[in-house]
Amino acid sequence: MITSALKNEIGLRIGRVCSALKKNGYDAMLVSSNANLYYTSGRIFSGYTYIDANKGATYFVKRPVGLSGDNVEYIRKPEQISELLKEKPHRIALELDSLSVNDYIRLCKVFAESEIVDASAVLRYLRSVKTDFEIEKMKECGVRHDEAYKHIHKIYREGMTDIELQIEVERQLRLNGSLGIFRIHGESMELFMGNVLCGDNADAPSPYDFAMGGAGLNDSLPVGCNGTAIRPGMTVMVDMCGNFNGYMTDMTRVFYVGRLDRLAKIAHETSIAIHHRLVKESRPGIPAARLYEIALEMTKDAGLEDYFMGHKQKAGYIGHGVGIEVNEAPVLAPRSKELLERGNVIAIEPKYVIPHVGAVGVESTYVVTDDGLECITNFPEEMAELY
Amino acid sequence: MITSALKNEIGLRIGRVCSALKKNGYDAMLVSSNANLYYTSGRIFSGYTYIDANKGATYFVKRPVGLSGDNVEYIRKPEQISELLKEKPHRIALELDSLSVNDYIRLCKVFAESEIVDASAVLRYLRSVKTDFEIEKMKECGVRHDEAYKHIHKIYREGMTDIELQIEVERQLRLNGSLGIFRIHGESMELFMGNVLCGDNADAPSPYDFAMGGAGLNDSLPVGCNGTAIRPGMTVMVDMCGNFNGYMTDMTRVFYVGRLDRLAKIAHETSIAIHHRLVKESRPGIPAARLYEIALEMTKDAGLEDYFMGHKQKAGYIGHGVGIEVNEAPVLAPRSKELLERGNVIAIEPKYVIPHVGAVGVESTYVVTDDGLECITNFPEEMAELY
Repeated sequence: MITSALKNEIGLRIGRVCSALKKNGYDAMLVSSNANLYYTSGRIFSGYTYIDANKGATYFVKRPVGLSGDNVEYIRKPEQISELLKEKPHRIALELDSLSVNDYIRLCKVFAESEIVDASAVLRYLRSVKTDFEIEKMKECGVRHDEAYKHIHKIYREGMTDIELQIEVERQLRLNGSLGIFRIHGESMELFMGNVLCGDNADAPSPYDFAMGGAGLNDSLPVGCNGTAIRPGMTVMVDMCGNFNGYMTDMTRVFYVGRLDRLAKIAHETSIAIHHRLVKESRPGIPAARLYEIALEMTKDAGLEDYFMGHKQKAGYIGHGVGIEVNEAPVLAPRSKELLERGNVIAIEPKYVIPHVGAVGVESTYVVTDDGLECITNFPEEMAELY
Repeated sequence: MITSALKNEIGLRIGRVCSALKKNGYDAMLVSSNANLYYTSGRIFSGYTYIDANKGATYFVKRPVGLSGDNVEYIRKPEQISELLKEKPHRIALELDSLSVNDYIRLCKVFAESEIVDASAVLRYLRSVKTDFEIEKMKECGVRHDEAYKHIHKIYREGMTDIELQIEVERQLRLNGSLGIFRIHGESMELFMGNVLCGDNADAPSPYDFAMGGAGLNDSLPVGCNGTAIRPGMTVMVDMCGNFNGYMTDMTRVFYVGRLDRLAKIAHETSIAIHHRLVKESRPGIPAARLYEIALEMTKDAGLEDYFMGHKQKAGYIGHGVGIEVNEAPVLAPRSKELLERGNVIAIEPKYVIPHVGAVGVESTYVVTDDGLECITNFPEEMAELY
C-alpha cells in the first residue's frame, strides 16, 4: 500500500517504532487511531497497523477495498488478526490514550494470551521528533499558510463582523489547499479551522484548552467568533489552522482597525520580543519549561502579567508541539519535564488579552535544529492596520 | 448554568435519563463526551455531568470559568468528584463507547467502591428519540440547509472543479449560519463539512463508513473531492452537512452538467421513488431493517443492484439517525434490530454510483411522527442542470 516515494520514510518510522518497542521490552504494537495509522502507513485507512518489534509492520485493512502490498492483509473484524498472526506477542502495546473502553475490551479478547501495555507515550515521543521528510511537509504548510494570510488585507471590508472576516479567510485557506480539518489529540477539544477574535469577545472564557477563547456563535461550540462588529480601536487576532497535507503549521497574526490602543501595542511588541529572545536562547537540550519561564519573566518585566495568556481565564502554556495533530509534544508549560530536541516542531504563542480591545501576540511555528529555532511561518510579525 | 429557556428541556432530558437508570438498576451516570455533555446541559463545557438516578444532575465544571447555577460545582480534576459526592453510587454508568482507556482507569479509581457499567446504549437510545424542542431545532436546520442549497445554481461556473464548487458551497453554508464542524460518533470517521462528488471520483473507495466515497485531495483525508474538473455528462452530488445550532440535518441533492446520462436518470428516479414509498409505508413500529429491504427490492426491480450504495465498494445501510451527531440510532441496515419510534429523526439516502458519470440519489432528513415520516429538508428532489 505504500508508494515508492513514501517507502523509505515509512521504513524509517517503523524502524524507530521497533527500536522503541525493544527498548521497552514490548513484542508488538497495534495502532488504531487515525493520526497514528497515518504516521505508520502514510495514509488513512480503516483497520490497524500491527508492528512486530522484530519483523516490522503488517497492515490489517477493513476499508478501502483495493489497497495492495506485500504487508497488507484484508480483515472484516479485529478477531481475524489473532488468526492471521503466526506468533502471538507476549506483551503488546495499545493506544490507551485514544482507544475507547469498548474497543479495548474487544482487543483484550483478541490478545487474550498477551500482557497489554500502553503505546501512547512511545508514539507521542516518536512523533514529537520529526523526520526530514515530515519537516519538509511542514515547511510546505508554512509557505501556503503565509500565502493565504497575505490575502487578509484584501479580504477585509469596513463594517465586517468577526465571523464575516473569518468565513472569507477560511475560503482563502481552502483555495490555497487547506484540507479543512485539523486533528486534535483527545476527543474533548473541538474547533472549526481556527479563530478570529476581536474586542471584548477575546476575553470570553471557553471550555477548551486553547490559548485563547471567545464566546462562539452557539453554545454547542462556545469558542471563537461571536458576531462582533469590527470597530475602530479593536485588534483582530487571526489564528487559523494550516493543514495542507496531513501536517500543519500554527500561525497567529494580529491586525487592528483605526487607532491602535497603547497597551495592546506594548503587549504585542513584548510578544515579538519574547519570540526573538526564545529564538536566541533555545537549543536542543533546553527544558521546555524554561521557554515558559522566559516568557513569563519578560511579561512581568513589562507589567503585563494580568493579560498574559488570557485575562478572565488563562491558558497554562505558551506553546506546544505540532505535526499531524495540533497538540503534540513537547508542551511549553511550567511543569513540563521535556527537553527540546532536534526535530521537534513547536508553535510558540505568547499572547495577551487586553480588555475591550482584543487579543494580541504572535504565534509562529519553529523547527528545532542543531543551531536553534528555525521559523517556518514567515508572515510579518508586526500588527498591521486593516482599512 | 442553564438559561430559563432551556431549563424545562434539560429537566425533561435528565428525567428521562433518571428513569432509564432506575429501569436498569443503575444508581448514577457520569457523562464526559462533548455530545452527551451538550445533551445533558444544553452547552459544551469541560467537565462532567453527574446524574443521580434519584436526585438529578450535578455539573462538575473545569472550564470555562464563570458558569453559575445551583447544580454547578467547580473542580480541577475528576478525583474531586468523589470528595464532593455525599452518597457513593453502588453502580455507576460511564460512556464506555467514547471514554478512552486511560480516562477510564482514572475514573475507576475515583469510583473505586462502585461497580462500573456501560452508559452508551442508554444514551444512544434516549438521544434517538428526540424531544419537541430538539425537533424544532432540527427543522430550523432544514430550513437553513435548504436556503444554502438554493445558491448552488448561482455559485456554479463552467470549468469549475469539484473542490472549487465545494469551497463556494462551504462559504454559503457558513454565511447561512453553519457552525462548520459536525459531530461524528466514534473517533475513526473524519470529514470536512461534507462532500461534492463528480464523475469517476464517486466510485473511488474511501476508508470511512460513509455512504459515498471519493479519493479526496490527500492521503491524510482520502474522501470526497479530488480536483475533478466538472464536465458535460457528469452528475454533481452535493452532500454537505447542515449543523446550524448544535443539531443537524443531512441532505444530498444531485445536479448535472450538459447531457444527462440515461442510467443515472433512471437511478435517481428510483431513489426518489424509494423515498416516496418509504414515506408512505413507514410508521412507528416498522422495523428499521424493513426500510432497507424495501429500498433493495425496488433497486433490484429496476435492475440497479450493481450500483446500489456504491459500486466498487458498497455501504451496508440506506440511512441513519441524525441529531447532535451525524450517525445516531436507528440504523437502516439489513441486520438492524431497531423499530422506528415517534421522535426518531432519520436521514434516508438510497444512492447509486454510475461508473464514469457520478453518484445519484436523494438524501433527506425525516421526523418520525404518529402519522409517518415528515420531511424537514425540502430542497427539490429532482436533478437540476447546472449551467
